[in-house]
Amino acid sequence: MKIAISIGDPNGVGLEILLKSHKKICKFCNPVYCVDKGLLKRAARILNLKLPKDLKCISLERRIPKIVPGDINKESGAYAYASFLQALNLTLEGKTKALVTLPIHKKAWQLAGISYVGHTEALREVCKFDKLESKKLESKKRFQSQKAIMMLGSPKLYIALFSDHIPLKEVPLLINLESLKEFLLNLAPHILKTPCGVLGLNPHAGDFGVLGDEDVVIKEAIKLANASLGKEVFIGPLVPDTAFIGKHLRYYVAMYHDQGLIPLKTLYFKESINITLNLPIIRTSVDHGTAFDIAYKNKAESKSYVNAIKEAILRVKSQALVR
Amino acid sequence: MKIAISIGDPNGVGLEILLKSHKKICKFCNPVYCVDKGLLKRAARILNLKLPKDLKCISLERRIPKIVPGDINKESGAYAYASFLQALNLTLEGKTKALVTLPIHKKAWQLAGISYVGHTEALREVCKFDKLESKKLESKKRFQSQKAIMMLGSPKLYIALFSDHIPLKEVPLLINLESLKEFLLNLAPHILKTPCGVLGLNPHAGDFGVLGDEDVVIKEAIKLANASLGKEVFIGPLVPDTAFIGKHLRYYVAMYHDQGLIPLKTLYFKESINITLNLPIIRTSVDHGTAFDIAYKNKAESKSYVNAIKEAILRVKSQALVR
Repeated sequence: MKIAISIGDPNGVGLEILLKSHKKICKFCNPVYCVDKGLLKRAARILNLKLPKDLKCISLERRIPKIVPGDINKESGAYAYASFLQALNLTLEGKTKALVTLPIHKKAWQLAGISYVGHTEALREVCKFDKLESKKLESKKRFQSQKAIMMLGSPKLYIALFSDHIPLKEVPLLINLESLKEFLLNLAPHILKTPCGVLGLNPHAGDFGVLGDEDVVIKEAIKLANASLGKEVFIGPLVPDTAFIGKHLRYYVAMYHDQGLIPLKTLYFKESINITLNLPIIRTSVDHGTAFDIAYKNKAESKSYVNAIKEAILRVKSQALVR
Repeated sequence: MKIAISIGDPNGVGLEILLKSHKKICKFCNPVYCVDKGLLKRAARILNLKLPKDLKCISLERRIPKIVPGDINKESGAYAYASFLQALNLTLEGKTKALVTLPIHKKAWQLAGISYVGHTEALREVCKFDKLESKKLESKKRFQSQKAIMMLGSPKLYIALFSDHIPLKEVPLLINLESLKEFLLNLAPHILKTPCGVLGLNPHAGDFGVLGDEDVVIKEAIKLANASLGKEVFIGPLVPDTAFIGKHLRYYVAMYHDQGLIPLKTLYFKESINITLNLPIIRTSVDHGTAFDIAYKNKAESKSYVNAIKEAILRVKSQALVR
């Protein structure tokens, strides 16, 4: 099975992980690397690694950036974006079955003048109506009203984020009945073990309205979504600080990034991955950043990357997609 | 050593914990219960427990409320508040050495017309200038400019909260250089193992300003506080979702309630307790709520309560206080 792989920021840990895991992942897929082979050669030289001979690379047809470990600059940002776009298009065109992304640096994307904060935001925009030429009108319409959902997970705990890479102060403004209900309905087909716990926004889930009023809206959205689904898929709003004690649920919705990622990473850091749901393609990713502090020091962990590829393959096979 | 104990909400798990732990805590302190003995009798009857004979109770001189397990009402809220005030005053007057509180229900306090959201907020207000008659003028002045700090902890992990029981949307508005620096300076004497990690506010601690600008202010406040202290007590802003992975630090500052309490409770729930710092008295508390769902079902855990009493005694003995 062909999997398109984007390399992330060339100055981070991505290329080390890619090179060191190549042999392993070839056992269960055919990776298609969206990168100029010349860049991989440079990375292998710095890391003192032998370049594998059977690498299938697709040139990005642009100037290969100089590798400066840990450096944040627009050339590396632009190259990372081009790699991502190449891999995405291969998958949208059906030439590869899924997209797996290595970590980019958001500031480098910003310096390169890219208007998306990160991968998920870019996927939301790019995977739109006009890209889906082979679909029937009905499904086109459906996708127009949908948005990509970021879900982080390990086999034991999956967290879907209602909001993700935005400043904390913008989170409460996003919580309204209609958009939360739509989010829950879009997410429901991807919940493989119910119930899915929905976290409240405020301390103690608002303590009956004493500590904020958004939790009342969350409660109502859960009620409406369950009614529309005809079964109790969602429960909540759960008190956030006690929701992960002891034997926790398998699936949760977090209202904001750190509310979900603090418990996930605290409990299951090394094994966790990132899945983008509600897209016309299958996309998974590692659940860590560029780790500039250990870039090109032969210290990077590849477990999350290997898990991300395995999850992508599983999802292709099970076709557990809303198409 | 005499310890004043307030009973919390009579309809929650507080009285069960109090009755069942009495014998145990008498081994290391002399508890002074701020409650009418008649109420303890009723609780013991419901729980089918024998009332200990050596209970030292101080009547609140008001109507004893009816116990309705799990019910939220103004009578129980008002009684819980009266118990708290009694215990606080005993400690302020020096008749008891420390104050340990059992959990109240915030909505019940609100129904009873009490203007404080919870214990910590009430302590901030009550422990003011006019209550501190025996202090010298200099220390009076100092206390006026100080605020009670809520710290939650287990022996392995302590979290000080820069903001606590407020709606999430109000948190970003509180972050300014002066108040954060003052908070850090007030907290510094209570950090028994440095460095203390200060968490960022936004996802990825703002990702160099891409995801919000508060983290830049946090960074500057840390710098100023360390400069004023003449040593590196604080480090950060740390990326919140990776700060608790693996072998974590002993002390952290969280910008908001759930940022700190999610990892603390996820990792160390049963053993954790609540300490209020920067007060003229020593006050500790259990780190759980009224648990109305299991009230009067003989299911309550008392480990946190016993730990809270032990921590209070330790602090009295070590006099590790800013007096």
